[in-house]
Amino acid sequence: MSEPTQQPPVESEGAEKGPSKNELKKQAKAAEKAAKAAEKAAKQKEQQEQKAAAEVDYGTENYGSLPLNQSGSRPRRERVNIADLNKHYDKPVLFRARIQTSRAQGNKMVFLNLRQRIDTVQALAVVNSDTISKQMVKWIATLPDESIVLVEGVAKQPPEPIKSASVSDVEIHVEKLHLEVGVTARLPFTLDDASRNDEEVASSEVQMNRVLLETRLNNRVLDLRTLTNQAVFRLQAAIGDLFRQTLESQGFIEIHSPKLQGAATESGASVFQVSYFKGKAFLAQSPQLAKQMAIAADFDRVYEIGPVFRAEDSNTHRHMTEFVGLDLEMAIQEHYHEVMDVLDNLFVSIFRGLKQKYAKEIEVVGKQFPATEFKWREGPEGTLKFTFAQAVDLLVEDGVAREVLDDINTENEKRLGRIVKAKYDVDYYIIDKFPMELRPFYTMPDANDPTLSNSYDFFMRGEEILSGAQRIHDPVFLAEKMREKGVDPDSMKGYLDAFRLGCPPHGGGGIGLERVLMLFLKLNNIRRASLFPRDPKRLEP
Amino acid sequence: MSEPTQQPPVESEGAEKGPSKNELKKQAKAAEKAAKAAEKAAKQKEQQEQKAAAEVDYGTENYGSLPLNQSGSRPRRERVNIADLNKHYDKPVLFRARIQTSRAQGNKMVFLNLRQRIDTVQALAVVNSDTISKQMVKWIATLPDESIVLVEGVAKQPPEPIKSASVSDVEIHVEKLHLEVGVTARLPFTLDDASRNDEEVASSEVQMNRVLLETRLNNRVLDLRTLTNQAVFRLQAAIGDLFRQTLESQGFIEIHSPKLQGAATESGASVFQVSYFKGKAFLAQSPQLAKQMAIAADFDRVYEIGPVFRAEDSNTHRHMTEFVGLDLEMAIQEHYHEVMDVLDNLFVSIFRGLKQKYAKEIEVVGKQFPATEFKWREGPEGTLKFTFAQAVDLLVEDGVAREVLDDINTENEKRLGRIVKAKYDVDYYIIDKFPMELRPFYTMPDANDPTLSNSYDFFMRGEEILSGAQRIHDPVFLAEKMREKGVDPDSMKGYLDAFRLGCPPHGGGGIGLERVLMLFLKLNNIRRASLFPRDPKRLEP
Repeated sequence: MSEPTQQPPVESEGAEKGPSKNELKKQAKAAEKAAKAAEKAAKQKEQQEQKAAAEVDYGTENYGSLPLNQSGSRPRRERVNIADLNKHYDKPVLFRARIQTSRAQGNKMVFLNLRQRIDTVQALAVVNSDTISKQMVKWIATLPDESIVLVEGVAKQPPEPIKSASVSDVEIHVEKLHLEVGVTARLPFTLDDASRNDEEVASSEVQMNRVLLETRLNNRVLDLRTLTNQAVFRLQAAIGDLFRQTLESQGFIEIHSPKLQGAATESGASVFQVSYFKGKAFLAQSPQLAKQMAIAADFDRVYEIGPVFRAEDSNTHRHMTEFVGLDLEMAIQEHYHEVMDVLDNLFVSIFRGLKQKYAKEIEVVGKQFPATEFKWREGPEGTLKFTFAQAVDLLVEDGVAREVLDDINTENEKRLGRIVKAKYDVDYYIIDKFPMELRPFYTMPDANDPTLSNSYDFFMRGEEILSGAQRIHDPVFLAEKMREKGVDPDSMKGYLDAFRLGCPPHGGGGIGLERVLMLFLKLNNIRRASLFPRDPKRLEP
Repeated sequence: MSEPTQQPPVESEGAEKGPSKNELKKQAKAAEKAAKAAEKAAKQKEQQEQKAAAEVDYGTENYGSLPLNQSGSRPRRERVNIADLNKHYDKPVLFRARIQTSRAQGNKMVFLNLRQRIDTVQALAVVNSDTISKQMVKWIATLPDESIVLVEGVAKQPPEPIKSASVSDVEIHVEKLHLEVGVTARLPFTLDDASRNDEEVASSEVQMNRVLLETRLNNRVLDLRTLTNQAVFRLQAAIGDLFRQTLESQGFIEIHSPKLQGAATESGASVFQVSYFKGKAFLAQSPQLAKQMAIAADFDRVYEIGPVFRAEDSNTHRHMTEFVGLDLEMAIQEHYHEVMDVLDNLFVSIFRGLKQKYAKEIEVVGKQFPATEFKWREGPEGTLKFTFAQAVDLLVEDGVAREVLDDINTENEKRLGRIVKAKYDVDYYIIDKFPMELRPFYTMPDANDPTLSNSYDFFMRGEEILSGAQRIHDPVFLAEKMREKGVDPDSMKGYLDAFRLGCPPHGGGGIGLERVLMLFLKLNNIRRASLFPRDPKRLEP
């Protein structure tokens, strides 16, 4: 640094004399240097601040509540999934989890059951001189179930497998634990209670709380957190995925048809009416007409995954007012059995895919909903198939009066399922060639017997999960059949017009996603297979 | 054969004498033989009938109308796609196609342009002594456009590429041609007219019919058959597929949330009301609340593809009352930019996937809707990003008054698109950190500046295609923000309850599928990107 001038500067006096040129230069240099130093210091400070911000503020202690995460910093610290903890033995790990349960042992130790989706792990916090104080253990023990915590610790291999956790070969030795998100509501039930199966509840000597379906659905967000439900909805997504993959590999393309329709379609069945500006609209009860029009528009093979709406006031175990339809439609080259074969192959692909790729999820659900393994027939014989007439014969042989079998009602449908299971040991089969009078107007009659139709239903565990058919593609014949079934062709002009422009022979089918899921897993009520189910009495949550 | 008895049998006379034991034996043997022969003959006849049934009945001639296909037989004859015909040179081929156009040359020859989805091929029927009569050529020439025909012929390599067909290296020499499905309506426009681009129509010296959008949509089934539309909807399906694949590979699972809701959600915006038994329901204007509840239910990363409904009475080029939402929501570990990065990576995957795998479809659409190649920035720099403040500065620099830029309206949004295109040569960019007052109540404010929010919009060619943000996961803070925006927390109790049960920090976004499709291809009107579009004035077809 340059020496300061000895003479104190005086504003008016000696102004003329002032500092010499040299001194001025010196001063300028000094100022420049100081400015540079200040800039450097500011930069360093900024960097330090940035570095500080880049570290998560876990408070001054090893525990306590974190401030509300408003994305104040992004330190990019590596986090581990509970399912992968056994790849990190004796290493420090960081992860977020729910506290499913906690249990203090004396005042020096607390056990936690920590949960992420379908995985749980045991964690242990023990007082030590280093990281864990008595206060910390005490505080951890007071955290309510379902709190979201950020855990730092070491993944240890326990001496014996831990039966109470799904990841049984890891125990976390906690070093830091912070509350990230608290629970401010009283839990209407515990996750443990919600995870028990009926048998456990019934056979237990201690009082166990059975959580009713109604209570679960009223508190669906909590109910969905059980390992069972986490697995159920992974399997729901898997069915959709297998459906798509199988069809994509066979030249199908996905379409999206409108749910808002100008007219109540399909022979005036129960549809919901919508206020549409100054007029009205109706909610599609299936993509039937749209997907047929897509075939008339030459898309050749189409599928759709989307909501369908049924305004039926029925509160059974298998009806909802809104469900997810897996629909397909395809041009036929020679025979409608081409469609039946595609659909059959599709179901077998789904069953096979679930078993092969989702064994863990199926096992998890099976603990709460025990079910016999789902069986179907593969190999050269292929899927078990009956004609409607043969199915009736099976029921008659079993003691059902033939007179009541013009149609097979739900009760006899289930009975048939039991007969088939006993005789063939399969849970999946097809009934072909339904009587024409049981099917909608657009169903193609059999080539030789006009009382029969080119239509089929598919069944899982004795319940219908798909209905399909060859459709009439000839507009004159279609109008004739409409009139026979009491539908005025003029009321469906748009639909008929599509066929007047020439439509190839075609057929298809519609699958209820939730039904397939419910029956594959034997959930016994379709509401369990729907994220937020809707029925005549339920529109919330 | 045994000799007949010479004596004519007399009923009463000689009854006692009758035929000898030996004769009886002989007769029995003969009867048995005859029965066997009859059985054999019957079997042969049955086999012949079966064989006959197994052959398609193409009539007695090489041409004519086929009977209505009611799946009377399934001969399993191999059929070829037009796109694959060049793998069958000099071989007999069988396929179904539409007649796009036909042109007789004298009375001995007829040229056909045959179509399957996005492929066309030229076929030629010439009178010869062998298979094709003069009558047949005459009859073929009378078949109306859009008839569905079954063609048998030989795939020949033409001396020169055929420019009028998309498969230019094949010409079919027709040997048999049958009408499978006729056209009974007068076509409102020809496919050729519907396939022209505006420039062609404008510059042509001959009178060409321009087909208006309104006319197309009124006759959508026909309109959808153009090569352009076949390609557009293949690309629509591709976007959905790329969306799913990208997210599935990052641990997202698909959910299906209900479209029927008990209350009008999201601050009383325009929703459709539904008659629901004795009460009412509302159509979801987004899966926003449901997907947030899925995060509160620990699904961690979810996406949904489904219809969303907007009851806004606006008839612009980019609004529909029903469209397909591609939605996602995910838990945040540290910072909402994790979500922005997932979304950004998602868009780049979609753009890249379209260019790499669907070049043919993009080219087909480009013939009718010429567009500059869609550009985005890759490499270490990554996608172009601005803060809202920076975007405003760009507009101010360009001459827009700062006073009008509290929000960026549609006009300025487009202007910004042009500025960015000129300056950076990209069609895709992100604007981050929107002012809090422009966003809904559930948006998380910035950690340091409460007037800003942790929210972003994504843009393609100067139009918004995604809106998203970090959401408030704290129920107390959420209720406070509701009140600030004039929403009564009690009216959304179910939603708030989900957060009271503890919900991790999270964020997400919603994409309009049809907008992405429209803007990528520059279709200029969103209705062209929807199979059967819905707007305030259109509910049909």
